[in-house]
Amino acid sequence: MITPLLENKELDHLGLEKLLYHLMSGGVHGIFILGTTGEGPSLSYKVRKELITATCKIVAGRIPVLVGVTDTSVEGTLEIANHAKSAGADALVVAPPYYLPISQQEMGNYLERMVPTLSLPFMLYNMPSCTKLHLSIDVVKKAKELGAIGIKDSSGDLSYLYQLIQEFKEDPLFSIIAGTELFLPETIMYGGHGAVAGGANFFPRLFVDLYDAAARNNLEEVKLLRDKVLRVHRTIYEVGEYSSRHIKGIKSALMAMGICQDYSAEPLYRFNEAQQSKIKGHIEQFNYKNEYKSAH
Amino acid sequence: MITPLLENKELDHLGLEKLLYHLMSGGVHGIFILGTTGEGPSLSYKVRKELITATCKIVAGRIPVLVGVTDTSVEGTLEIANHAKSAGADALVVAPPYYLPISQQEMGNYLERMVPTLSLPFMLYNMPSCTKLHLSIDVVKKAKELGAIGIKDSSGDLSYLYQLIQEFKEDPLFSIIAGTELFLPETIMYGGHGAVAGGANFFPRLFVDLYDAAARNNLEEVKLLRDKVLRVHRTIYEVGEYSSRHIKGIKSALMAMGICQDYSAEPLYRFNEAQQSKIKGHIEQFNYKNEYKSAH
Amino acid sequence: MITPLLENKELDHLGLEKLLYHLMSGGVHGIFILGTTGEGPSLSYKVRKELITATCKIVAGRIPVLVGVTDTSVEGTLEIANHAKSAGADALVVAPPYYLPISQQEMGNYLERMVPTLSLPFMLYNMPSCTKLHLSIDVVKKAKELGAIGIKDSSGDLSYLYQLIQEFKEDPLFSIIAGTELFLPETIMYGGHGAVAGGANFFPRLFVDLYDAAARNNLEEVKLLRDKVLRVHRTIYEVGEYSSRHIKGIKSALMAMGICQDYSAEPLYRFNEAQQSKIKGHIEQFNYKNEYKSAH
Amino acid sequence: MITPLLENKELDHLGLEKLLYHLMSGGVHGIFILGTTGEGPSLSYKVRKELITATCKIVAGRIPVLVGVTDTSVEGTLEIANHAKSAGADALVVAPPYYLPISQQEMGNYLERMVPTLSLPFMLYNMPSCTKLHLSIDVVKKAKELGAIGIKDSSGDLSYLYQLIQEFKEDPLFSIIAGTELFLPETIMYGGHGAVAGGANFFPRLFVDLYDAAARNNLEEVKLLRDKVLRVHRTIYEVGEYSSRHIKGIKSALMAMGICQDYSAEPLYRFNEAQQSKIKGHIEQFNYKNEYKSAH
Repeated sequence: MITPLLENKELDHLGLEKLLYHLMSGGVHGIFILGTTGEGPSLSYKVRKELITATCKIVAGRIPVLVGVTDTSVEGTLEIANHAKSAGADALVVAPPYYLPISQQEMGNYLERMVPTLSLPFMLYNMPSCTKLHLSIDVVKKAKELGAIGIKDSSGDLSYLYQLIQEFKEDPLFSIIAGTELFLPETIMYGGHGAVAGGANFFPRLFVDLYDAAARNNLEEVKLLRDKVLRVHRTIYEVGEYSSRHIKGIKSALMAMGICQDYSAEPLYRFNEAQQSKIKGHIEQFNYKNEYKSAH
Repeated sequence: MITPLLENKELDHLGLEKLLYHLMSGGVHGIFILGTTGEGPSLSYKVRKELITATCKIVAGRIPVLVGVTDTSVEGTLEIANHAKSAGADALVVAPPYYLPISQQEMGNYLERMVPTLSLPFMLYNMPSCTKLHLSIDVVKKAKELGAIGIKDSSGDLSYLYQLIQEFKEDPLFSIIAGTELFLPETIMYGGHGAVAGGANFFPRLFVDLYDAAARNNLEEVKLLRDKVLRVHRTIYEVGEYSSRHIKGIKSALMAMGICQDYSAEPLYRFNEAQQSKIKGHIEQFNYKNEYKSAH
Repeated sequence: MITPLLENKELDHLGLEKLLYHLMSGGVHGIFILGTTGEGPSLSYKVRKELITATCKIVAGRIPVLVGVTDTSVEGTLEIANHAKSAGADALVVAPPYYLPISQQEMGNYLERMVPTLSLPFMLYNMPSCTKLHLSIDVVKKAKELGAIGIKDSSGDLSYLYQLIQEFKEDPLFSIIAGTELFLPETIMYGGHGAVAGGANFFPRLFVDLYDAAARNNLEEVKLLRDKVLRVHRTIYEVGEYSSRHIKGIKSALMAMGICQDYSAEPLYRFNEAQQSKIKGHIEQFNYKNEYKSAH
Repeated sequence: MITPLLENKELDHLGLEKLLYHLMSGGVHGIFILGTTGEGPSLSYKVRKELITATCKIVAGRIPVLVGVTDTSVEGTLEIANHAKSAGADALVVAPPYYLPISQQEMGNYLERMVPTLSLPFMLYNMPSCTKLHLSIDVVKKAKELGAIGIKDSSGDLSYLYQLIQEFKEDPLFSIIAGTELFLPETIMYGGHGAVAGGANFFPRLFVDLYDAAARNNLEEVKLLRDKVLRVHRTIYEVGEYSSRHIKGIKSALMAMGICQDYSAEPLYRFNEAQQSKIKGHIEQFNYKNEYKSAH
């Protein structure tokens, strides 16, 4: 989930509430806040905590809330983790500390020391483009021994995701979650468990339907829905430049849909008017209100 | 400067005092705290602030104190910057926010919005291996227009450092500082202004002498002193594994010299006994007490 | 297809004949020689030409023969291309010249000048790990305008492969071929046309069955066969070190199956005895003779 | 040395003769043909051999001729090496075969098998941007044991070049040659032996003077001459786009000086008229005829 912000970079509480209801009524199975798309590391601890508290309150136990906690300092990580526990979140999401480049061995040792101090179950988060470490299968195994309940893989490396599935699919207590939304059907069909889809921020039902179709092995429906996801990629994700355009595009799409503001935390900046208007055009073309009701 | 820490990850105040006197009596021209070797991003805000306050108090205006302020959140950056100002620091050191990969253009825009809120003069910090952005000459120019007083380049890319020198060496108000200690003589001889040398933590006089020799164009002495720096590289920096071994080695060397503890902040961990004892052996071989008095 | 070689690095003619009959009786739809797995660039022009001639003679028009022609010199490329034409090959496979790093623009211009001199239809070959250029969609479009009949994508980047499919799947005259064998079912199910599978050298029927299952949208059978492919990956491809182990492993598997010698061209070298015996053990475990008859 | 070519991609014999006399009268200590700037791998074997024969004949033993021999096939390498021997060349220059990515271990083993078949002394060539392998110090040591007479390092990585110097500078039979022309003075001053400078194609005297100044430890003259090299970088090397602009720029400069044609082998293409005219302007500004006579 993105983090709705006001122009003054405070939390957009009204937008947050509308976004969460939009997601829940769209049928999503859980909420992951303060991840990469959620601009977690870009937010002050104050805003991060407010977001956790408000999200847990609005969701109110209907679906699990997972909270990205990784910080460059372990004290920061634990501060957010403890807040998540007391706010009623369900699990934590843990990536490698992301300033100093560290080795797989150092990451494993870090988890050994850090995990016992976590107040909630945790999921591993593989995000090499931001953390500079592509978690080895050995580190994932060690995390599992330490109690990890799954991994979200955002490497974009499907061969690796398939390796994860092979390695862990027999284990009912360990979830393999794709962080690359386009790989949702592949993940489900071959034994993985879900996806964290940035596009689900604006079209939650589309991704839930895609999940269902994949889970039912309905290849025809998978193809149909997947084509719509690809259309999102060719339109909304193509506005703007730089890799940050995905985050900006999602926020802009949500504003076009009247759900929340589109402001970003530093160092990002929201789309300009021309870009906003392109996004608006794309969203209108999708005619999402009618189109993304579940088909079943 | 490294950050001396106790086993419980609190600041090692005694060690800090001894380290600062070691550096000042070694003749260094300034102190840079909370950089990469200082594990800045790995420390809690509380420890970062304590370090700033204590450093400024001990240094007491004898030499400039520069403070690394970059955080993934701009609020964090400003919090540290404001603290540095009130503690009496002289300048700030600003790197790109380091979680999301950003473009040169986004970095330039970020500086435009952020710099006017800084409470002290600032120096740019190019550290692509940690921040994922190798600052373009255009961004450096923009930073200079916004008031930057110099740049510390830790890219390890000498061609780039030479480009910086060519571009800015005529400007008396903009300093080119090498972050790769081996490039200190090249930097000085061709028109740059200094180096931030990790090895100066334990052998400050060696690097000050090297600076002086280069500034006097004394190539023979440069070669002699440079050979000693290379010996440091072949000994102390070769203990341990992974790129973090430089930080661990410096801390271990300082412990061997009786200056401060060798604990590191998460995700790093200090050297084991065998490694500590190797470092101790290397330090003894250097016989630094007699050897690194200034030659002039 | 790998290139069977004798100890003296001459072509293993007997092995070649057995390999080609093994492949054709395994049901493969075409033969691609002198690619990466075929060690094309490592062979002398003399051996390359012998291989082309012998392959075309043995295949005798039963299935298409595609010939990798790219060389660092355009004269070399055309020499091989002309030989392929006169030997009766069906098409050429063209990658970027691979010594100097070139830009997308330079690659496009090169194709414009070079393609008109080709004597046979050609397919583009995207192999960034060897050629240093990940062909842009624009270059692929230009190649298509110049007459390309398809592209073999060995980037390992599934998002890119999906982009290719989206872009070109409506065109009946342009084939999208996966070079990553694990992506065969995804490629077929979403509208691509085939795969060049290294593992098909030893288990051709397995990959033909997988293709058929994917083409029939039979997801259950796809999963079953794919598990066997994954077993190949976890066994045969895990012997040895370095990225070249795939080529060595395939050759060693073919020797274990009594099909051809396992010698490699410089700079590679065949597996040692311990590795050969591991491969032999894996092959025996597969009991391929009974197992990889087609299920339909 | 670049390879002068006619429009039909045959060797420009007249240009070659003029270029070689230009270089020899400029005082260069040796000639390296068929390297990266020489577009060696882009030329047909026929042109490569013609160039070797013609160069040796014109140079006529006045200075050493070194010949780049590496090819993706070992047979090609030996064919060129044998031709170089019979044409009277002095030494060979050997890089890793550059199609398949190979490991340091595989490169070491390749040298062990290949070097005994070489007909002339050889120098190692480190060119990771083209060969994908940054030769480890261990591989360089093994090459030295096998008889290598030196290494040309074109990695652009000065820390590595300094490591080479430290490791081998005591050995009178092993030469450390910088492939990055800007690092010529550093190389000489700290114990290395020379540089292969692309810019010496058009301004040989400039680089010979720089070498002499560095060898005499004359830092003032080094700075003066180095400023001219930097001016070359800011002018001639800045025309055009892509990394290939250095090769194109050198050839264009030589044409502007009336020395040879500026055609390139595929996949490169010479500068267009606007670019040619920019280069001509830069060359005229240098007023090289008077300026680059030796100062001593």
